[in-house]
Parts: sequence; C-alpha cells; structure tokens
Amino acid sequence: MSREITIALDAMSGDHGPQVVVRAAIAALERNRDLALILVGREEALLAAMKARNVSPSERLRIHHAAQIVEMDELPSQAMRMKKDSSMRVAIDLVKSGQAGACVSAGNTGALMATARFVLKMLPGIDRPAICTTLPGLHGATRVLDLGANVDSKAEHLLEFAIMGSALASAADDLPRPRVGLLNIGAEEMKGNDQVREAAQLLAGSELNYAGFVEGADIYLGDVDVVVCDGFVGNVALKSSEGVASMIRELIREEFMRNPITRLAGLIALPVLHRLRRRIDPRRYNGASLLGLSGIVIKSHGGADVLAFGRAIDVAALEVTKDVPKLICRQVEATLAKREAV
Amino acid sequence: MSREITIALDAMSGDHGPQVVVRAAIAALERNRDLALILVGREEALLAAMKARNVSPSERLRIHHAAQIVEMDELPSQAMRMKKDSSMRVAIDLVKSGQAGACVSAGNTGALMATARFVLKMLPGIDRPAICTTLPGLHGATRVLDLGANVDSKAEHLLEFAIMGSALASAADDLPRPRVGLLNIGAEEMKGNDQVREAAQLLAGSELNYAGFVEGADIYLGDVDVVVCDGFVGNVALKSSEGVASMIRELIREEFMRNPITRLAGLIALPVLHRLRRRIDPRRYNGASLLGLSGIVIKSHGGADVLAFGRAIDVAALEVTKDVPKLICRQVEATLAKREAV
Repeated sequence: MSREITIALDAMSGDHGPQVVVRAAIAALERNRDLALILVGREEALLAAMKARNVSPSERLRIHHAAQIVEMDELPSQAMRMKKDSSMRVAIDLVKSGQAGACVSAGNTGALMATARFVLKMLPGIDRPAICTTLPGLHGATRVLDLGANVDSKAEHLLEFAIMGSALASAADDLPRPRVGLLNIGAEEMKGNDQVREAAQLLAGSELNYAGFVEGADIYLGDVDVVVCDGFVGNVALKSSEGVASMIRELIREEFMRNPITRLAGLIALPVLHRLRRRIDPRRYNGASLLGLSGIVIKSHGGADVLAFGRAIDVAALEVTKDVPKLICRQVEATLAKREAV
Repeated sequence: MSREITIALDAMSGDHGPQVVVRAAIAALERNRDLALILVGREEALLAAMKARNVSPSERLRIHHAAQIVEMDELPSQAMRMKKDSSMRVAIDLVKSGQAGACVSAGNTGALMATARFVLKMLPGIDRPAICTTLPGLHGATRVLDLGANVDSKAEHLLEFAIMGSALASAADDLPRPRVGLLNIGAEEMKGNDQVREAAQLLAGSELNYAGFVEGADIYLGDVDVVVCDGFVGNVALKSSEGVASMIRELIREEFMRNPITRLAGLIALPVLHRLRRRIDPRRYNGASLLGLSGIVIKSHGGADVLAFGRAIDVAALEVTKDVPKLICRQVEATLAKREAV
C-alpha cells in the first residue's frame, strides 16, 4: 500500500512494557487503517503479550527482535554505547534504515535523545534538538519547546526552537502562520535575561509570525500557537503545571469524599466531573516530539497507559503523514533566505 | 505599647489603590490588636477613602502624606531616581527610619525591589535580594524563592536563597530545621545545568537541612519546606501554575454551566465547590517577601482585593514579630562559621 505508515514501537521500555504497548498497538491499528506497526523487543515477551490479547503477528503488526533493554535510570551515554541491541536503539535504527517512518518510546528520555541524535543525526541548519509537547489552553492548544533537551540555550537556539515549533504547529494544526511567543517573566526593565532579550531581536527579524513575550500563564490561554523557552525553564513549567493539576484533582476528590452528603453531591455531579477530568486528562497530551533530528522520534511518558501510549502513536503517525522533518528543513531555509536578504 | 507592630502601607499603588488598602487596613486592625498602620499616600484621597468607611485617623491608623505615585509600567530606575515623594518610596523610608517595622506595597515589583534595595541596603553576607512566596501543597505549604528578582543566579546566589528561605520558614512556620530542596529537572546525567549542580555541592556542604533535588511537581506536594531556584525559573513556575489553576477553575465553571441539568448538579455541589475554591484561592497566598534587605518589605499582588491585601499585611506583621532580617543574619553567620570550620 502506498499510503501505509509504518511506526516502530520500543515495546520494552516504560513502566508497563509490552502489556501496554501491545494493547495500544492493537487499538491504534483499529483506529487507523493506513497504519502498520513494528513491535521491537524480546520476541518471547512480545509473542506472549500478543497471545494474551488473542492476536498473532501479521503484516500490520510485526515483531522485530531486540535482546536488550535500556533501564530508566541508566546513564544516557552508557545506554548509547553499550546497548546496541536494545529495543530503543533498534527502533531508532529502523527509522534510520527507512523500514519505519517514525519510532515511539516510553523509555529514558536522556538515552532516547542521545541515541536518536547519534543514529539519525541533526537536520541541516539545526544545532540542537528540542523536546516539544502540546498543552491544553482555554482558547486552544499550545506547543511548548524545549522541555528539557537543552539547559543553557543561547538566543540562536531559541530561534531554532521557534523554527521547529512553527513548522510542527503549521503541519499538525493546519495553521498557515502559527503565532510564536517567547517565554519571559514580563516586559519591565529589570525583567528577562540576556538570552531572551537577544532571542526576541532574532525572532522579530525573522520571517516567523512572532507575537512577542508571553508569561507562564499565557501557555494555558492558547493565544499563541507556539511557546519557546530554554529546556530547563520549559521542563520546570511543565512539571509545575502537572503538579498543580494533580493537586487540584486530589483536592476535588478529597472535598467530594468528605462526608455522606458531599459524596451524594459528587454522585450527582459525576457526569460533569467526568467531562472535566477528560478535558484536563494529561494522557490526552502524551507524545512529545524530539524535533531537529533527521527522523521522527516520539517520546511517550514512562507511566503511559494504553490510552496515553496510543495517543503517542497517533502523534507519530501524524508527523509521518505531514513529513515534519522536511517541513522543518523548509522553515530553516526560509529563515536563512530572509536573513541573507537583509 | 511595647508589643506594638507598626506597618507602613503604600496606599496608592496596585490596581485598586486606597479603596482596597484602607478597607484591608481596617480589617487587619480588627484582627490584630497589637497592630498599628500608617497609610502612605495622598492625604486627600486617603481621608476620602477612610470617610467612605466611617473611619477617622487614629493612633493605630495614621496617614502619612506622599504626593507621587509610581506607575505600574514605570521603569524601576526612573521611579527610584525621580519619585522621592512617591507613596512607595516614603513607605520604605519609614522602615529605614524605624518609624515602621515593615512596609507593604502592591506596586510595580521592579521599582519596589530597586527602591527598597537602594534605601534599605542589603544584609551583611547577602549579595542579592530574592522574592519568596508561599505555595499550597498536598502535605503542607512550601516557600519558593527566587521568583524574579534575579534572572541569572550563580550557585552562590542559590545558596543565599536557601539560607534566606530557611530562616523565613523556620521563623514563620516554627520549623527547627526546614527541609530545603533545589529545583532541577531530574537526576539523570544530561539533566540540570552547571549552576544547579554546583549549588547542590554548596548546599550539601552547608549546615542547612538540604534534601536534594526536587522537580516542578514537588512544589505542590509540600514534602520540602523551601524550594530554591533562579528567579527566571521560579517566576515561570509560579505563573504557569497560576495559569493552570485558573484554567481549571474556568473549566469547572464551564462544565457546570453547560446545561440545566449540569447547573442543577452544580447547585447541589455548591458547598463542596466553595470549599475547593477556598483551598486553591490564590488570595490566601498573597504577600511575597523581599528577602535579603535590612528591613521587611512585602509585595502584594497588583490586583489584590481586600482579603488578599489583608493577607499581605498579616505576612508583614508576622515577619516583624519574628524579626526575619535578624534571623537571616544569624543563618548567614552559621553558614560562614561552618565553611570556615571545614
């Protein structure tokens, strides 16, 4: 089939391993008829997990054996050097060789980034890879990057992130000119640091649709399509946000469980609470893109369940369909052309 | 009265000016019998606001005239140089001269920080001031600093923040040895930046109760008492958190307002929703401390209402009672003593 999208799944990584990956794979194949998946990992374990779901290997759901597993606490450099037959490495190799259009892994982020960079190499014109995810907002979703691949980003790197985020948002969300915001702590004299102020100038002079500085709270308004920041800052913003959201979820539960009367109120409000829970369900935003590589690599949350891992597969499929790396290259070229023209 | 605590209130700054400050002052005096307040600002406006509440100036609620006002968008350096008779500046002057034990302002953060630093000077042994606030957590509140006074903190500055946060937490929350966490993005090889790694070594070698690295989500668990970070990072974490919390509040409202049935459910759940709202009400956490200065300065949110501004007055009163600057000095001395002993 010419329309077929093939995705390699690192089926051994993450907290739940093959059980979750195999179930998510079966569901994804049912959702998307153009999809074929390669389960990468220990054949025996994968066959057992498939058998438990009454499924056998097929054209659309193949097994590719890989003997090793990268542990969650393993040093990235060590995983990269020592585990050439890990499910993570082999899944990336399948992207490199063209047997898969993308790979998805719920493994160790550092190891995934280091190995993907080593195997796939960077796109021309991109110096640093970045991790990008989608976050929900009141007026629409926002893509935020970098979320931790870089911890001391210079202004030039922030521009690269803007280029990559813009290319992704334009492809995935069908936006002709995504609005790009630069994360800062305000517009006053004393605020901001040198990198951010310098990046603002680069962005204002670029051909991107630069919307100026945004603050942390703006991420959740959705008034810009892409928010650009250093990876240390972005990671802290993401984790703090998750912390607040899960604190509030817990407080809602506590308050409704307080006594028989509040429990009754909770029972009556249950359909509303379910809708609310669905709207802020972090699983629906699982699947972060490792951008800037010559290949599509999607990082799933380590604790992802079937729904969440399935969402990461969907993200990978969309990026293959849209050929995001090619779009990033085009955006890099447009930026360079504009700069040379100035 | 020897037990009297006098606090100067910048009554002209903030979005609501004298109306909110005067009402918050009256309520604070009712709550705390040991308190005296000085309203700093335009006498006419303050008298009018007091009259509207049927209150006249008294020993415990004096007016101190100041003709100028620092605007919210004014450059800090300009406000500091040009507005020597602003309500903000005069309130700080009253702390300097000893007529007030602390001041509270809802004005421009940059101007407040610059002016306070210029007038009050730094405590011996402290190189940089820091902004510290309390955030709610599932297992207890956490003090986080810096929230934006410094945007390129070196390891030594992070140690200073830990010393100051620790002194404040120990005084305000009666904790003999507050647990101090250092905000990072994980413990893996590739994670963290140089400043944070270096700060971790300084903290581990200090006499503080250092609990190691924490991530963004840990702020809202409350398993450490103090979280230390660079001001850019802390500000983004705080604003992102506020963004998520207000998005969720809005989604709760939307879901319960969806149709007559959900509205009825909302009506039944109203007492529970009110309790929930109270527990995550940001007004209850208003009042950030500007630490490291030879004097107590509390920054209120610009949009603070009566409840929120009152909370900032209470924070100021507590810091006066505990003499937080003296405690910070002691903590600095203890740190230096330990370092020299090594």
